[in-house]
Amino acid sequence: MEKTSFLCFSIIFFTVFFIFSSSFYSLSKPGFIGSSRCTEFSSISKTTQVHKPTTHDHKNSVPHHPLDPLTIQEINKVRAILSSYEPFASSVPAIQFHSLSLDEPDKNQVLAWKKGDPLPPRKAFVIALLNGKSHRVTVDIDSSQVTEHNIHTGSGYPTLSSDDLSTALQVTLSDAEFNQSVTNRGVALSDLACVTLSTGWYGSDEENGRVIKVQCYSSEGSPNFYMRPIEGLTVTVDIDRKKVVKISNTGRDIPVPKSTNTDYRYKAPSEKKKSLNPISIEQPKGPSFIVEDRHTVKWANWEFHIKADQRAGLVISRAMVEDSESGELRSVMYKGFSSELFVPYMDPDGNWYFKTYMDAGEYGLGVTALPLVPLNDCPRYSYYMDGIFVAADGKPFVQSNMICLFERYAGDINWRHSEIPLFGFQIREARPKVTLVARMAASVGNYDYIFDWEFQTDGLIRIKVGLSGMLMVKGTPYENMNQVPHHHQDEMTGTFVSENVIGVVHDHFITFHLDMDIDEDGSNNSFVKVNLVKEENLTGKSPRKSYLKTKRHVAKTEKDAQIKLKLYDPSEFHVINPSRRSRLGNPVGYKVVPGGTAASLLDHDDPPQQRSAFTNNQIWVTPYNRTEQWAGGLFVYQGRGDDTLAVWSERNRPIENTDIVLWYTLGFHHIPCQEDFPIMPTVSSSFDLKPVNFFESNPILGAAPTFEKDLPVCKLIDSW
Amino acid sequence: MEKTSFLCFSIIFFTVFFIFSSSFYSLSKPGFIGSSRCTEFSSISKTTQVHKPTTHDHKNSVPHHPLDPLTIQEINKVRAILSSYEPFASSVPAIQFHSLSLDEPDKNQVLAWKKGDPLPPRKAFVIALLNGKSHRVTVDIDSSQVTEHNIHTGSGYPTLSSDDLSTALQVTLSDAEFNQSVTNRGVALSDLACVTLSTGWYGSDEENGRVIKVQCYSSEGSPNFYMRPIEGLTVTVDIDRKKVVKISNTGRDIPVPKSTNTDYRYKAPSEKKKSLNPISIEQPKGPSFIVEDRHTVKWANWEFHIKADQRAGLVISRAMVEDSESGELRSVMYKGFSSELFVPYMDPDGNWYFKTYMDAGEYGLGVTALPLVPLNDCPRYSYYMDGIFVAADGKPFVQSNMICLFERYAGDINWRHSEIPLFGFQIREARPKVTLVARMAASVGNYDYIFDWEFQTDGLIRIKVGLSGMLMVKGTPYENMNQVPHHHQDEMTGTFVSENVIGVVHDHFITFHLDMDIDEDGSNNSFVKVNLVKEENLTGKSPRKSYLKTKRHVAKTEKDAQIKLKLYDPSEFHVINPSRRSRLGNPVGYKVVPGGTAASLLDHDDPPQQRSAFTNNQIWVTPYNRTEQWAGGLFVYQGRGDDTLAVWSERNRPIENTDIVLWYTLGFHHIPCQEDFPIMPTVSSSFDLKPVNFFESNPILGAAPTFEKDLPVCKLIDSW
Repeated sequence: MEKTSFLCFSIIFFTVFFIFSSSFYSLSKPGFIGSSRCTEFSSISKTTQVHKPTTHDHKNSVPHHPLDPLTIQEINKVRAILSSYEPFASSVPAIQFHSLSLDEPDKNQVLAWKKGDPLPPRKAFVIALLNGKSHRVTVDIDSSQVTEHNIHTGSGYPTLSSDDLSTALQVTLSDAEFNQSVTNRGVALSDLACVTLSTGWYGSDEENGRVIKVQCYSSEGSPNFYMRPIEGLTVTVDIDRKKVVKISNTGRDIPVPKSTNTDYRYKAPSEKKKSLNPISIEQPKGPSFIVEDRHTVKWANWEFHIKADQRAGLVISRAMVEDSESGELRSVMYKGFSSELFVPYMDPDGNWYFKTYMDAGEYGLGVTALPLVPLNDCPRYSYYMDGIFVAADGKPFVQSNMICLFERYAGDINWRHSEIPLFGFQIREARPKVTLVARMAASVGNYDYIFDWEFQTDGLIRIKVGLSGMLMVKGTPYENMNQVPHHHQDEMTGTFVSENVIGVVHDHFITFHLDMDIDEDGSNNSFVKVNLVKEENLTGKSPRKSYLKTKRHVAKTEKDAQIKLKLYDPSEFHVINPSRRSRLGNPVGYKVVPGGTAASLLDHDDPPQQRSAFTNNQIWVTPYNRTEQWAGGLFVYQGRGDDTLAVWSERNRPIENTDIVLWYTLGFHHIPCQEDFPIMPTVSSSFDLKPVNFFESNPILGAAPTFEKDLPVCKLIDSW
Repeated sequence: MEKTSFLCFSIIFFTVFFIFSSSFYSLSKPGFIGSSRCTEFSSISKTTQVHKPTTHDHKNSVPHHPLDPLTIQEINKVRAILSSYEPFASSVPAIQFHSLSLDEPDKNQVLAWKKGDPLPPRKAFVIALLNGKSHRVTVDIDSSQVTEHNIHTGSGYPTLSSDDLSTALQVTLSDAEFNQSVTNRGVALSDLACVTLSTGWYGSDEENGRVIKVQCYSSEGSPNFYMRPIEGLTVTVDIDRKKVVKISNTGRDIPVPKSTNTDYRYKAPSEKKKSLNPISIEQPKGPSFIVEDRHTVKWANWEFHIKADQRAGLVISRAMVEDSESGELRSVMYKGFSSELFVPYMDPDGNWYFKTYMDAGEYGLGVTALPLVPLNDCPRYSYYMDGIFVAADGKPFVQSNMICLFERYAGDINWRHSEIPLFGFQIREARPKVTLVARMAASVGNYDYIFDWEFQTDGLIRIKVGLSGMLMVKGTPYENMNQVPHHHQDEMTGTFVSENVIGVVHDHFITFHLDMDIDEDGSNNSFVKVNLVKEENLTGKSPRKSYLKTKRHVAKTEKDAQIKLKLYDPSEFHVINPSRRSRLGNPVGYKVVPGGTAASLLDHDDPPQQRSAFTNNQIWVTPYNRTEQWAGGLFVYQGRGDDTLAVWSERNRPIENTDIVLWYTLGFHHIPCQEDFPIMPTVSSSFDLKPVNFFESNPILGAAPTFEKDLPVCKLIDSW
């Protein structure tokens, strides 16, 4: 692993290019990672957890679990194997690696594996570009053999590499016409910050190779260049031919917005500002979870495998929960991850129409997940995990502290009941709620996506996405609404969030792949819609005129499970194991509890919606197929939507009594407001996977309350 | 205040009557309230907060704010005034007090009042029953005069009093036929636990005075009698005539379910159970909020008045947030509270059809909110508040520790952004999210409703309701699904949650009264629907075929603001102040962000839905009217729905540029599952009130990050 690879590869998505003319960009105040005097008490800790950002040695790490990601050594070996494999060996220029990650063993191999068993053969799956062709290569690491190799013939290209981005920038910045345009706008080239935007796909005439659109900002006076667009200047770059295809410069009358109040970095307050007293989640005995072999998490009644993936970000596998009666570990989910993230902006303008990003497949959610900030992104006592990723040259690098794991106590109540204190009899039972959170935050250019997987002791898994970071804004000649002529107001595609700055309306859709395996035999699962139906015409039978009744519909084929949520015809959606029933005869299952239900409302034949047709429904169910991992297809970049979840589902395969995958899309409509300027307070939505007759009874019935004697005595450091 | 009043009045809702034959009901293990050694450090505390349940002296307390609830002395004075006021003075039997609380001064008086000013005249509003008539009486406390007195002539009766409940029980338990029925079911009278159920209203033939339905359970072997119904035995009692109207005994073939695994009380574990390490929210300097004069809360940028109300529970008034630029306190909401709680069960059976509770108006959410359990209902460092309520005899009593206030840190992120570490330039800015929560938990019989009002520093208010406690279950002759003949399965109205026990499907709707006053001149507010409309037919104008655009519709009259949420025709819903615009020309406002969107789907002409017609829409807006506080009407008990929010709204009054009230209904459909037995893990939903162009920019831009040096050093008590 070389430092340069890391730095180089980190230039991703809206890659920013700075030419530094001054010392303006001093390092932002770090200070977050201080020394904790809590370690003085380490002798009382009963766990091996440390309370500071975890440091892992990756040089000599070896895989311990069939799903463990490739190690540095394995990645290096794959690169070595391919460097002597034709046609890559003799290719000039060298091949570009767009993906190099574990080719997961077949599910039955993983399910059969027990700790202590030898690992199934380790394989790598590689996507590489050579002379404009996308190659899919499978490498058997143990035997040093390429076992599969084929060339992609469908539409679309692999995820952008860091080299693609730097190429686009170099080509742009070397263009005299572009430079002149920038200068004409009054922006010094030394203040230029440019982002590399995926171009989408808008018809065959547009297609002539891999292209990126470059747009730029002024970083003069503020690191928050995102609020200072050079509006209406778009450079289309052919990445492979390394040339400018087109320069669109339609925004000459639009000033670059000022930098006033755009800087969000912390500066120690000059005057005495009201600030809150210190508050923290404290665990004097340390957290209650353990992480075995770096990837297997054991906490309370849960056990699961967690890893970082360059494209998906955080991946949870083999999630199992202890049966509250037998104590056996029971399977809930084989694999869950964010499969795609679709962000269409709502502006038909020539410089905006194409902004319909698919962040996972075009940029990668793991590779954009930068190190989390201790104490601020994650509480004290968090455990941090790294990602081992691969740069365009095939070299591994460490994405450090990109996942944190922590126990959460938010003052919430797991269950409670009070009974009136009558005749000396009184019930005052309440149990505090403590959960385990696995978190990652992807900074995909301007936007920050916080992904939380929260595990509860009652068996529920909450999957939450928080949005922060910066708006993608549009420059306008007007300073504010009062200046906009009435006949122009209708043309506005967003809200004034600052002078000359429009926050453009947009949506976010995060589609999760949830390979549910309910109980041992996860190959025998079914999807059931439990519909609440109104019964009427009760005259003579009841003083009531209506009531709601449940009707169960087992989905036979995929089309039965293309679910558009209905507020006024509500249903629950269960994944059950028909071969396992509770002692009361109820099928055991988990339900998906929708949340963040905003739907994509674009025309189905609008190109971005065709490519993101996986957002046509909030829920889909497909039969398990190891090649169907990415809702927008494996090759998303400039893809035409010919390999999406929607296409697979149209095949209408049987999904009853088989191994099924649930897909859920969390949606947000975002109409910006001034509070979103210059950085957005986090907005979150979540959905749940919740046991439904999975346990024989409340699994946390026997949970203990908190007693004062168990809690710590705390002092401020400076009062010692 | 007398202890007897307290105990007596506490027999509310599903009032339980126990005849004790054994010492079975020992006090449940208390232990929660221990001594905190944190007080050893009280010298470092900079606040006046204590970390233990707060003890208030109420005997000599005086009101400090126009909205402060009546004090004990004031209540006693009102009772004294009425005891010499005809017709109450000479009435035999004595009048029954169903409500006695502050008659809030007119809004303009409250708004004009400043700290230090004399209080506007203190008045009490009394609802009393005398000879079957509901009297509404207003008493001027200072002048000792009854200033208004009228008799209610519409439908419905006041909220049940404790005497009503004990009357219903005494009448039932004195009935020989009833007792024989119980004995015949094999239940010892000494094990009987009975609940008093509101009867709803189902047609004029049913009406012949105030009635309660009594149903009973066996408490043998478990305090969780709720899981052991004596199914199909319902006694209808005329409360005023003190006699049994009818006994329905149709469940003779249904056994009383066993008590196995129903007890949820904590017992120290006999064997070594895996338990989590201690975890707590620690604040070595104490919390950052202060409570002035017991009711005015100041925290971060927020200030509001909070009080306990016997009917509504927790009431937030005069919520104001500091402008992030000018520092001025700006009005957000004049008053917010849970106005009604509608819980229809979905079973047309003769013993079930009437279970369509309106918990606020029929029982009261404040009076059923028992003391919170420190450390388990609320975290350490919580501040506890009492309610001063009134018993049926007009005497005051203290509902202690019924509200807690605490700061929450859940490991969440207020805002963040990371930027790639390029050329020595790096952004890693994140701010932890700390909020203030005001909580109450109403145990309305079997169900527990946790009400949280959460204030965020970014100006957002989250209103959350959590459901826990026990299901209302139905006995069945079948032990499990396998025994149910196929032709009977369709008749099931719920899920088997234990042997012979069906958890019946039901809904919960909590309707909030939100008197928004956006900015000083809250009398000039408007309601705006910001609709996201799809624009199409862009051929020739853009490569895109569609995009979403906002269209604003200002509601002119109430019918314009009868909102049924639409998933596929989405809108934002703003309350704005048209006379105040941001510097960018956007109207300042707050939006209601829906959540918990389940809608009531009963027929509009079904009697319970007529009475709860306020759930016909999720959002309503009415012009402010001080008499329109209770969505189901002032007199809900056996009411016919002639005074609901739906009736008011049909008048279609103008609501533009005036003082308006927003109503939001949080809804839950609940299909029970085995995990809900014998006590339910909390299920929560929430909605938000969120600033939208209210602030000129992100109000927490300048928030400081957490530094390690600010955090405490903690040890377990037993390690000192």
